[in-house]
Amino acid sequence: MKIYNEAITLQSTKVREVFNITWQVKAAVEKSSFRDGIIVVTSLHSNSAVIVNDEEPGLLADLDVWLQQLAPARHDYKHQGRFESNSSVHFQSLLLHHQVIIPFTERRLDLGPWQFILFIELDGQRPKRISVKVVGE
Amino acid sequence: MKIYNEAITLQSTKVREVFNITWQVKAAVEKSSFRDGIIVVTSLHSNSAVIVNDEEPGLLADLDVWLQQLAPARHDYKHQGRFESNSSVHFQSLLLHHQVIIPFTERRLDLGPWQFILFIELDGQRPKRISVKVVGE
Amino acid sequence: MKIYNEAITLQSTKVREVFNITWQVKAAVEKSSFRDGIIVVTSLHSNSAVIVNDEEPGLLADLDVWLQQLAPARHDYKHQGRFESNSSVHFQSLLLHHQVIIPFTERRLDLGPWQFILFIELDGQRPKRISVKVVGE
Repeated sequence: MKIYNEAITLQSTKVREVFNITWQVKAAVEKSSFRDGIIVVTSLHSNSAVIVNDEEPGLLADLDVWLQQLAPARHDYKHQGRFESNSSVHFQSLLLHHQVIIPFTERRLDLGPWQFILFIELDGQRPKRISVKVVGE
Repeated sequence: MKIYNEAITLQSTKVREVFNITWQVKAAVEKSSFRDGIIVVTSLHSNSAVIVNDEEPGLLADLDVWLQQLAPARHDYKHQGRFESNSSVHFQSLLLHHQVIIPFTERRLDLGPWQFILFIELDGQRPKRISVKVVGE
Repeated sequence: MKIYNEAITLQSTKVREVFNITWQVKAAVEKSSFRDGIIVVTSLHSNSAVIVNDEEPGLLADLDVWLQQLAPARHDYKHQGRFESNSSVHFQSLLLHHQVIIPFTERRLDLGPWQFILFIELDGQRPKRISVKVVGE
């Protein structure tokens, strides 16, 4: 068993944006040359998320509306003003989770046909870092 | 450190159903013959979830109501119609998360006395696949 | 690749309380003497959570309010009375998730500058156990 590390940096052009990073994660597995293992994909920012789900545009638009309904931006949060992101953005990140583990077997990611690895930028326009750690053999 | 892989396939008889898969995960650890390690349990479908929680029937009934309140089925989602599952089901899956990692030590799962590994079928009646990857020694 | 195990036990003085356990996780990595790997941090209780997020006090106060709005304590849950925690606490635990994976590289945790490892006690005043499993080399 060995470890291969890679860092992805993304810079959104919008405040909220979804990036399909499946191919970058696949590329990391190829560079590792491991046949079997797991990949830990982690955002290093509390105002973003990493999920596995379908990337159909209607679904992603619905998701954005739903997140803002469940954890709306508000003016009476205690955490705001001088902080980078409003509490609502932190809650949306917690809801979606900031990381996923992707199992892979025979060099192929164990993903269903409608599963993609998505980086969800919730408060963007700044460079964001994603840690990709491949553990395998 | 080595890897042992197993796939679980489940077919629900109802649209929404909970399966306690703790014993299947235990069986995978036994087959691996590893003493210490982690098990990555991942659903390959975005309309289901894998959680660790109590399996008391009242709690599971409450959970089903709560999920449908927080992410209700609606007629105005952009993602619907020709797609397999309505957006509400995807959101419920994201809320619960589609995977868990189970640590194990001395061949025993590190679970509390009220923790079980549950597969939550959110839009079923079709076969669903769960990847079980045991990494250990 | 090897495994190093550690157990953290916490006892809150309040019903709801947040513990920053980042230094305990760092200490476990130091004791392991591994340079590179992952740490699986898991609560063994379904009425608590482990998250990675900022620990600014205003944010944590907002989080507590938000959790109780999204999954309020109610008198008509089926799971209550003779059980340790009301369904609302289980739902809050599911929302936040009961575990995180921390990647580490060159003996340093791969955390962003505003990311800390937090144990969220949701129904406390009893000792709670957290499993810390370091897998690395």
